[in-house]
Amino acid sequence: MSRDRLSPDAFDALCASHRDGFSLPQAFYGDPRVHALDLERLWRRRWLFAGHASRIAQPGDYTLFKLGDDELILTRNAQGEARALFNTCTHRGSALCLEPCGHAAKFVCPYHQWVFDADGELRSARNMPDDFDKASFGLRRAHIRELESLLFVCFAEEPPDFEPFANAMRPHLKLHGLPRAKVAATRAYELRANWKLMAENFFECNHCPTGHPEYCKAMAGITPPPRVEDREAERAHVETQRAWVARRGLAQQLSFEAGGWFHLNHMPLRPGFVTQSLDGKPVAPLMGEHTAYEAPAFAIVAYPNFWFEAGPDVAVTLRTLPRGPQELSVEAEWLVHADAVEGRDYDLERVMGLWKATGEQDWALIENNQRGVNSSRYRPGPYSPASEGGCRRFVAWYLDQLRKA
Amino acid sequence: MSRDRLSPDAFDALCASHRDGFSLPQAFYGDPRVHALDLERLWRRRWLFAGHASRIAQPGDYTLFKLGDDELILTRNAQGEARALFNTCTHRGSALCLEPCGHAAKFVCPYHQWVFDADGELRSARNMPDDFDKASFGLRRAHIRELESLLFVCFAEEPPDFEPFANAMRPHLKLHGLPRAKVAATRAYELRANWKLMAENFFECNHCPTGHPEYCKAMAGITPPPRVEDREAERAHVETQRAWVARRGLAQQLSFEAGGWFHLNHMPLRPGFVTQSLDGKPVAPLMGEHTAYEAPAFAIVAYPNFWFEAGPDVAVTLRTLPRGPQELSVEAEWLVHADAVEGRDYDLERVMGLWKATGEQDWALIENNQRGVNSSRYRPGPYSPASEGGCRRFVAWYLDQLRKA
Amino acid sequence: MSRDRLSPDAFDALCASHRDGFSLPQAFYGDPRVHALDLERLWRRRWLFAGHASRIAQPGDYTLFKLGDDELILTRNAQGEARALFNTCTHRGSALCLEPCGHAAKFVCPYHQWVFDADGELRSARNMPDDFDKASFGLRRAHIRELESLLFVCFAEEPPDFEPFANAMRPHLKLHGLPRAKVAATRAYELRANWKLMAENFFECNHCPTGHPEYCKAMAGITPPPRVEDREAERAHVETQRAWVARRGLAQQLSFEAGGWFHLNHMPLRPGFVTQSLDGKPVAPLMGEHTAYEAPAFAIVAYPNFWFEAGPDVAVTLRTLPRGPQELSVEAEWLVHADAVEGRDYDLERVMGLWKATGEQDWALIENNQRGVNSSRYRPGPYSPASEGGCRRFVAWYLDQLRKA
Repeated sequence: MSRDRLSPDAFDALCASHRDGFSLPQAFYGDPRVHALDLERLWRRRWLFAGHASRIAQPGDYTLFKLGDDELILTRNAQGEARALFNTCTHRGSALCLEPCGHAAKFVCPYHQWVFDADGELRSARNMPDDFDKASFGLRRAHIRELESLLFVCFAEEPPDFEPFANAMRPHLKLHGLPRAKVAATRAYELRANWKLMAENFFECNHCPTGHPEYCKAMAGITPPPRVEDREAERAHVETQRAWVARRGLAQQLSFEAGGWFHLNHMPLRPGFVTQSLDGKPVAPLMGEHTAYEAPAFAIVAYPNFWFEAGPDVAVTLRTLPRGPQELSVEAEWLVHADAVEGRDYDLERVMGLWKATGEQDWALIENNQRGVNSSRYRPGPYSPASEGGCRRFVAWYLDQLRKA
Repeated sequence: MSRDRLSPDAFDALCASHRDGFSLPQAFYGDPRVHALDLERLWRRRWLFAGHASRIAQPGDYTLFKLGDDELILTRNAQGEARALFNTCTHRGSALCLEPCGHAAKFVCPYHQWVFDADGELRSARNMPDDFDKASFGLRRAHIRELESLLFVCFAEEPPDFEPFANAMRPHLKLHGLPRAKVAATRAYELRANWKLMAENFFECNHCPTGHPEYCKAMAGITPPPRVEDREAERAHVETQRAWVARRGLAQQLSFEAGGWFHLNHMPLRPGFVTQSLDGKPVAPLMGEHTAYEAPAFAIVAYPNFWFEAGPDVAVTLRTLPRGPQELSVEAEWLVHADAVEGRDYDLERVMGLWKATGEQDWALIENNQRGVNSSRYRPGPYSPASEGGCRRFVAWYLDQLRKA
Repeated sequence: MSRDRLSPDAFDALCASHRDGFSLPQAFYGDPRVHALDLERLWRRRWLFAGHASRIAQPGDYTLFKLGDDELILTRNAQGEARALFNTCTHRGSALCLEPCGHAAKFVCPYHQWVFDADGELRSARNMPDDFDKASFGLRRAHIRELESLLFVCFAEEPPDFEPFANAMRPHLKLHGLPRAKVAATRAYELRANWKLMAENFFECNHCPTGHPEYCKAMAGITPPPRVEDREAERAHVETQRAWVARRGLAQQLSFEAGGWFHLNHMPLRPGFVTQSLDGKPVAPLMGEHTAYEAPAFAIVAYPNFWFEAGPDVAVTLRTLPRGPQELSVEAEWLVHADAVEGRDYDLERVMGLWKATGEQDWALIENNQRGVNSSRYRPGPYSPASEGGCRRFVAWYLDQLRKA
């Protein structure tokens, strides 16, 4: 029910005040009117990551997905197809599902007991006349796609084409066996920051050397090995890991091709690290097509809200959702093989170690960034051409989305 | 100090978008600009229930009544007349009464000690010149009426006529002996819902069969008796209770006559129930003119904020006050005979039982309703012609009030 | 990032609705649009008291000063000069200093490690090209002045002349030895009130006789001595104290001369009181040029946010800062001789006694005032010509500031 709107002229002037290669003007990081545009023109038009499909493993399982004042009931019909239904009864608007997740053979409104099936069709309308046209009062639906057990939803009437993304990702994701994975742990964070400051943070590693010691210790290519005599070994290890990818006929990297909205990358680990762990050792049983601890790390980004990192034994999803001009929810989930048993096959602290540490380091940096950006004397500053090109590309894509009126 | 206003054109368009027989368009249930209109054109113009008069039994007793940023001091002058004074000193605006209720021989401003009497007249203005015109600096007053010890206030300069309501209610209220009643218990609830969703809830019993098992067990005519063989006995009991009303020369029902704002109804209980209790048994000593436990239940509604239910031994008042576009205060009070002694003559849990359960069931339904109404895909839905006609009538009355500019 | 603005016409109409000699129209005490003007035209243009200089005693010490979304890093450079730097990195805007106070040889951005010195000069810009123009990316600075160890800052590009204030105050302040003082205690208060209601409160003593018994007991001239036979002795004591001031060649009072923004006053104590204490007795060792407990109390006011009271052994600073239309932060600090040792030379409760009691009495009066001013029936009321002339003068000065567009 946001009401204040930026006039078209004010929006044009704001866009014109952006200088390529610089961070955004202040209004983009906190003005409620820009935030309303972000929701309307970007978040409600794009595909959004919603979570791992094990949330709705069986027909009738449901989980709620919230954006703004909207709640989607994500569920699975009797045919096993995923569905996204708006959680508002077509009678008098009551929420149908009250809990964050659950199971329901039918969705019965708690107010006056109208009954809907998992496709949203109205099956019974208590106390309405016999000639009442039930077919016109089904639940409103959003679009939903399932890609290797990752759920994506779209609020737009006409969603963007999902297939290029799915086709690019599928062969890479198949390695990781997500349909046979379970959620081992979830952590939810509420950040006092505009969502774009999180995106910028994740599109550069300029802050990694001081900001992320654990991550830099695990990944090759960010900082040189501490000892000069280890450099040759690292170079050789990088080549071995690239060869592993090439042998499977996979691209090493696909980076926002043709102005697109997604990116993937196989990223070599340091010698001594077989997965993204704090000590380099495995954290859980092998997943998917992995037959040994020998693969590089694998990462996906899909604008605007999906980050994914996987090794041979663990995968991490990050889902961001804006809650206000300077409020952001981040949900991190750690996936392991569905058959793995906690305590016997894995230890949660070790599974979560690297990305819990790295994520929480970032949440602090992002909130500090917002704090200073709010100053009356904040002015857009220059991205480092050497190490912050990802921010520049993100900002260009973002402004393109907003300009598509 | 609300500032954003709906333009006349936008208001007209919004009203035009309402379809008779359907719930209201979304903006009526949460847009701050509609809420500002609700306050200005309805809440500040109509008579509002304020509470039972025992709050201000003696001259000098006072209680505060809050609506928006306004506080009224409800008090009683030396002549025993009720008064409603705005709680803002005419000197520099300080609040005069700081506690929610109390007793004051005079109202002395805590800031600079200007002194006012219970009629609001300025009696002393410390440090002002001798020729200071005290007569021009009395406290501003609101209108107040006392009807069988029920207090009603009105913020309008020219209040609507109170007499038709008072005349219609008085003979019915006399049965219940409210001037000789005391408040046995109070419960205050803060609902996250627009006030109109509460009103709609209370104007239909379509949700009763599943929503209010205790209420349906006590009241005849909502659901049939569980056993077929009991139907004839219930029919006979209903006739007996109607006859009880008729013998006293009272109307069974007066329902919003001539587009009016009030309603009363004598509602038969089920056989085995002598009052609105959980078990059908009495909960307190007889009140008023009742000489036996034989009367039906009695109910009043007065738009926009007064609900009243009474049996021979207990009366319940509900007072609603909007606190924001989606915030509502509800205060429930249970009245029993002034001479009844807790523990000896009544048990509080039994006195409150039915309406505490029923009310709290409704508060949850109403908040669920708001939650779903906030969805971007909420669309007004059809009221059941069979069982939700009261909602339709309320909505028509409400829109009429707003259109009276 | 406040957006709603009062149109020039609406502002003119609002000013025109003010009647000289009366309190302000309601909008001045709570309308967010007036508050935005207050910040823009007054708080961001005037000199603001920031605190005692012992917060930044040594080069590299820093303390943060917050106004709205702005944070200033108050620090001292190697030459010992005070500096005020905006806490927003010129790279991507991150806050540089995260703690409320501390010590830093250089200011290193926690995000990407750009390095600034205490003058705000950019010394190192990691990962930027060799030809990057560091000189153009220094931290933005605010103006800062140090007057007898009292720090004042100004956000304006062109600050008002500080010298008339400094020149008027310096000879009086020298008595109190603030450069050799330390902060013995700090109390912070968050008031639910517009800042102008606090200012009005402090510009009249009409509320003192009932509001401040401790203060009236200590100070001559507010209420007569309780016993008639003590009046002559008080008159003589007042003369003695005035003579003490005159002997030092100091003015007894300088009161907002030529429409100015500052005031000072030497205020005689009652016989039996040698400082502003609860019992009249000293509370700490002598400060500055005081050689005996014989001076009157000394007070400064500097619009809009500085209040100062001092005796021979203790000085109190009050710093107010608006946090919202009806939110105000007040910080009180008690200064004693830097060499005094708590427990041995002074007891904190005694040091703070009079002004903690008096201040807290005022905070309650001010919040009560706001509460009543918010009523729909609040109307500006008349200031007492006899005892509230200070409010009238403040209001005139305030409106002048806002009219300077």
